[in-house]
Amino acid sequence: MKANYSVILSNVGSSSDRYVPSGYGRPFSIAELFERVAKIEGVTGVELVGTWHVTENNVKELKGYLDHYGLKLVSIIPDHFGQIKWKNGSFSAKDQAIRKQAVAHTKEMIDAAVELGGNLVSLWPGQDGYDYLFQADYIQERDWFSEGIMEVAQYRPDFRVALEYKVKEPRTHSYLSTAANALLICQETAMPNVGVTIDFGHALNAYETPAESVALLKKYGDKLFHVHMNDNYRHWDDDMIVGSVHTIETLEFFYWLKRTEYTGWLSIDQYPYREDGLEAVREGVCAMQAFVRFVDELPTQEIEDLIRSGNAPQAAAYLRQLLLK
Amino acid sequence: MKANYSVILSNVGSSSDRYVPSGYGRPFSIAELFERVAKIEGVTGVELVGTWHVTENNVKELKGYLDHYGLKLVSIIPDHFGQIKWKNGSFSAKDQAIRKQAVAHTKEMIDAAVELGGNLVSLWPGQDGYDYLFQADYIQERDWFSEGIMEVAQYRPDFRVALEYKVKEPRTHSYLSTAANALLICQETAMPNVGVTIDFGHALNAYETPAESVALLKKYGDKLFHVHMNDNYRHWDDDMIVGSVHTIETLEFFYWLKRTEYTGWLSIDQYPYREDGLEAVREGVCAMQAFVRFVDELPTQEIEDLIRSGNAPQAAAYLRQLLLK
Amino acid sequence: MKANYSVILSNVGSSSDRYVPSGYGRPFSIAELFERVAKIEGVTGVELVGTWHVTENNVKELKGYLDHYGLKLVSIIPDHFGQIKWKNGSFSAKDQAIRKQAVAHTKEMIDAAVELGGNLVSLWPGQDGYDYLFQADYIQERDWFSEGIMEVAQYRPDFRVALEYKVKEPRTHSYLSTAANALLICQETAMPNVGVTIDFGHALNAYETPAESVALLKKYGDKLFHVHMNDNYRHWDDDMIVGSVHTIETLEFFYWLKRTEYTGWLSIDQYPYREDGLEAVREGVCAMQAFVRFVDELPTQEIEDLIRSGNAPQAAAYLRQLLLK
Amino acid sequence: MKANYSVILSNVGSSSDRYVPSGYGRPFSIAELFERVAKIEGVTGVELVGTWHVTENNVKELKGYLDHYGLKLVSIIPDHFGQIKWKNGSFSAKDQAIRKQAVAHTKEMIDAAVELGGNLVSLWPGQDGYDYLFQADYIQERDWFSEGIMEVAQYRPDFRVALEYKVKEPRTHSYLSTAANALLICQETAMPNVGVTIDFGHALNAYETPAESVALLKKYGDKLFHVHMNDNYRHWDDDMIVGSVHTIETLEFFYWLKRTEYTGWLSIDQYPYREDGLEAVREGVCAMQAFVRFVDELPTQEIEDLIRSGNAPQAAAYLRQLLLK
Repeated sequence: MKANYSVILSNVGSSSDRYVPSGYGRPFSIAELFERVAKIEGVTGVELVGTWHVTENNVKELKGYLDHYGLKLVSIIPDHFGQIKWKNGSFSAKDQAIRKQAVAHTKEMIDAAVELGGNLVSLWPGQDGYDYLFQADYIQERDWFSEGIMEVAQYRPDFRVALEYKVKEPRTHSYLSTAANALLICQETAMPNVGVTIDFGHALNAYETPAESVALLKKYGDKLFHVHMNDNYRHWDDDMIVGSVHTIETLEFFYWLKRTEYTGWLSIDQYPYREDGLEAVREGVCAMQAFVRFVDELPTQEIEDLIRSGNAPQAAAYLRQLLLK
Repeated sequence: MKANYSVILSNVGSSSDRYVPSGYGRPFSIAELFERVAKIEGVTGVELVGTWHVTENNVKELKGYLDHYGLKLVSIIPDHFGQIKWKNGSFSAKDQAIRKQAVAHTKEMIDAAVELGGNLVSLWPGQDGYDYLFQADYIQERDWFSEGIMEVAQYRPDFRVALEYKVKEPRTHSYLSTAANALLICQETAMPNVGVTIDFGHALNAYETPAESVALLKKYGDKLFHVHMNDNYRHWDDDMIVGSVHTIETLEFFYWLKRTEYTGWLSIDQYPYREDGLEAVREGVCAMQAFVRFVDELPTQEIEDLIRSGNAPQAAAYLRQLLLK
Repeated sequence: MKANYSVILSNVGSSSDRYVPSGYGRPFSIAELFERVAKIEGVTGVELVGTWHVTENNVKELKGYLDHYGLKLVSIIPDHFGQIKWKNGSFSAKDQAIRKQAVAHTKEMIDAAVELGGNLVSLWPGQDGYDYLFQADYIQERDWFSEGIMEVAQYRPDFRVALEYKVKEPRTHSYLSTAANALLICQETAMPNVGVTIDFGHALNAYETPAESVALLKKYGDKLFHVHMNDNYRHWDDDMIVGSVHTIETLEFFYWLKRTEYTGWLSIDQYPYREDGLEAVREGVCAMQAFVRFVDELPTQEIEDLIRSGNAPQAAAYLRQLLLK
Repeated sequence: MKANYSVILSNVGSSSDRYVPSGYGRPFSIAELFERVAKIEGVTGVELVGTWHVTENNVKELKGYLDHYGLKLVSIIPDHFGQIKWKNGSFSAKDQAIRKQAVAHTKEMIDAAVELGGNLVSLWPGQDGYDYLFQADYIQERDWFSEGIMEVAQYRPDFRVALEYKVKEPRTHSYLSTAANALLICQETAMPNVGVTIDFGHALNAYETPAESVALLKKYGDKLFHVHMNDNYRHWDDDMIVGSVHTIETLEFFYWLKRTEYTGWLSIDQYPYREDGLEAVREGVCAMQAFVRFVDELPTQEIEDLIRSGNAPQAAAYLRQLLLK
């Protein structure tokens, strides 16, 4: 399969959590982050985050880094989650002024992406949802959410807008929670340029089988626009190194990417709290490359026969012989 | 709110599990089960299960029981889960002959329901899904699934077909897993007579907030056709007595049923393994009645103000004063 | 039941997470936090956190606040989680120098607590554990952990040391994960002054029934030393307002606190990300008071009869009549 | 590492669940089950279940099968879960007569095991626990539980009694829930012949890392007496084929068995609902053999260095190179 590898820029830096908000490592400048990404063999693209990396004034500077290191802009992830003003939501916020800002910021990020040679924004509206019971008008707020997505999709119908779903965190419940939920919004907007980002770990958190999520998006309109890779222990978005927990599920995921002829980017989205970010991303990329090679060497007919028969002991034996020889 | 209470017939009987397959209580005949349901004040309808209760030959007998006790047929739940032949699925089975049987049996149950005065079948295709990785062609099997639903929906376009989703069990992964997944199939068939059954506990298992699931179905086509009530500890379909674990979530669920003007049945779906089935259902019905009364006495404007403001401490205080006075 | 209410000082301030590390609200000075706590009726004690609130140099200042507002020092929570140096653990860190610092800091906090009139430190060694497979020597590191606890317990055998367990976060797996795990360490140290803090939400996260955790600690040596209150949706430490999700489980918890004659503090441990901290804590305290009153008005004999009979429909009916009348 | 492979006899037969209580396959006689086990290369022992396989009258018959096929009796699992009388518990049942029967049956099974050449009973008191809140006296019932274990342990102090923990199912909450809980009972009885059975899947269900559970039992008295192998998706006891989901966690588990010098049996405990039981067990055994071989070929020093350093990217890289080459 054709594979292009990228990384979210902040992944090679330092991560914080609620106990160590200043970060487990030292802060890195944007220049340093680019320099670090450039050291990772095989990475040819980068994702940038609104506010954190992209501001009104630094697009030229970013263009310089991309050009200097020969990196492509894979996507911009607009900031709908990283400032106090979004704390009660962005596209679905109860406050109309905030909803307008969510749309306006997204359009700005689309413009910036165009300027930087990109063709995709990946929206992660992580603050859109609710924490408590009796706290939200689930219909009204979902209507607002879809209207906002519609407006940014219509802004440049030739530019792709991918929706990254996640079942929870930072809210206890997100509106854009699952692959199926994301598809409902794709269908509601009926815009060909609206699709979905699968984050491998988010799929696990929603008790989805990631390979099945790929299939679901293929079936309902060929809507897989982008992929974020990491791993976790299913219950939470631990954002660990690719393949460090789920060998077979990751393998099946890559198999289905190939089977459905996915041609987009494979992008690292890890949170290396206690690891050196550069080392963690490098290993994540190596892991993706290894899975791609592995999938490419699988005899397609045998795998398809296993899938068609559904014989579990046979499939288990086959995989065992591949992995534990 | 207008409320009609019913029960799945087998709920007043004996339950089994994999360790005590012959059941934790003595078996009850269908005649006995009807007699027991008739003892529960407030219950005016009953749901029947294909094979377990409804066969080719006993429709007249069932009509006799319904008439004798003055009970309405609320739905038939066709048997897509209770025989060895369904072990690898019904509508999505790899074996074409089984898929045909799934459709044929559903049509028979529709006919039986019509004969018994009903207007709804509630499909729970619990065996449709997969257990192992690399065991299923997720696209092909979902296509078959939708085709089957389409065929039974077209059989009698004036007769309602409700899809009951559940994220797992008996398969480790179900195709019809969430409210959003069910809606995708509703939209795919584009038949007005295809809708959804919410099982309160299944919603919890999928990390849905049940009230939000009601809202989602309202928003996307007014698709809530039927409700099954029980409770659990979120992680598994424990099928416990209504309201025995989640007081506030059950309350919010009933509030949203009223808010969205749901007029269907409220039906008990419990598995009283160690309890007397009759006592457990009676308490489940009493609980539903209490929640309905409670919701009817809530001052709508105050609740709507809470929802509109989203102020969590205020909402918590309001609920505390109601429940712990 | 006798009940004394307290709060962790930072709870009335601003909270941050990994997406908004600078906090969802404005920062508050320690003076302001004390002032805010003093506004909450019913609160007579406060818990302080090492580093965040207690340093080598400010003990006198803290004493001033306590005296001024007539607040008791309920506990100090030493800092074993809030600085980069603890990122790979404190008592169980692979680096011996860090393990020594963990012990030394705890002793300092014990001294500070004594000076402030307290008799308890509540240890939450949240960084002690591991994230990845093949990352830890589970035996060696647990040995170090127990040795550290032993050393701080022996420092002042008349001063109580409570261990607060939590199954995960910030590590994907904690060593001090469950009530039973905490008891193993109590027994290993065999020090009468080593006991356990139950955090209500942590118990839920470990699939414990909080009331049963109270019972377990009673049975194995009367080891419940302290209580932290909050609520969540079971899967994660959401640190929500007391009673906002689990009405019956919170009620049973308070019932068992009374039944086992718990005489310690009831302390708020919430993370009001999007709420005003003062309002959220005030409601949390009101909720605790309401549960205490509710439990005190329960007819003990009837509840004991229900527990002794184990009849679930009867217990459900009894609780329904109490809550939904 | 030295490894002996066995299987629970019923695993090669047919499995049922609550929807297909008569079983997904045809029933097999005990003679047939033995015949099937004998066909699986590498299996030299068998576990028998009370009531299901061992009755008062058939011990001689069972001896005949064991002799005929050259199989060793690995353990008897007394029946504390498979009859209506245990529905409210065995050792901890509220009814004293039931508690006595639990003890008496266990002693009978010990006698039978001795007669059959065994030295272990593995107790799985799956009905001991509770379903509902306010349903149990958690202290009294745990006291009864420990007293029962004490009595069976004292019956033959030279005969080993292993406690198999499981967090839930068939009860929503089990008393013997986790490795740490089991250790508390070991310590309470203070009998050297009381230890623990780890079921790999049960460990996952309790959010334990199975390798860490091995370590915990080693640390607190060398209490790992027996191992049951299977796999699942963490949330439920799916009882799937060994290694079919968790490659690395299974690998680490075997590594720690070797590291702690476990010399007991490795026994299959799968529920092959839809698979041929013989095929599923055969693959489970092949998987165990492959993991043992794999572990034996690992360069111990390199692995120990990884564990000692705790460097996650290095460990991930190392494992990737082993598994995906």
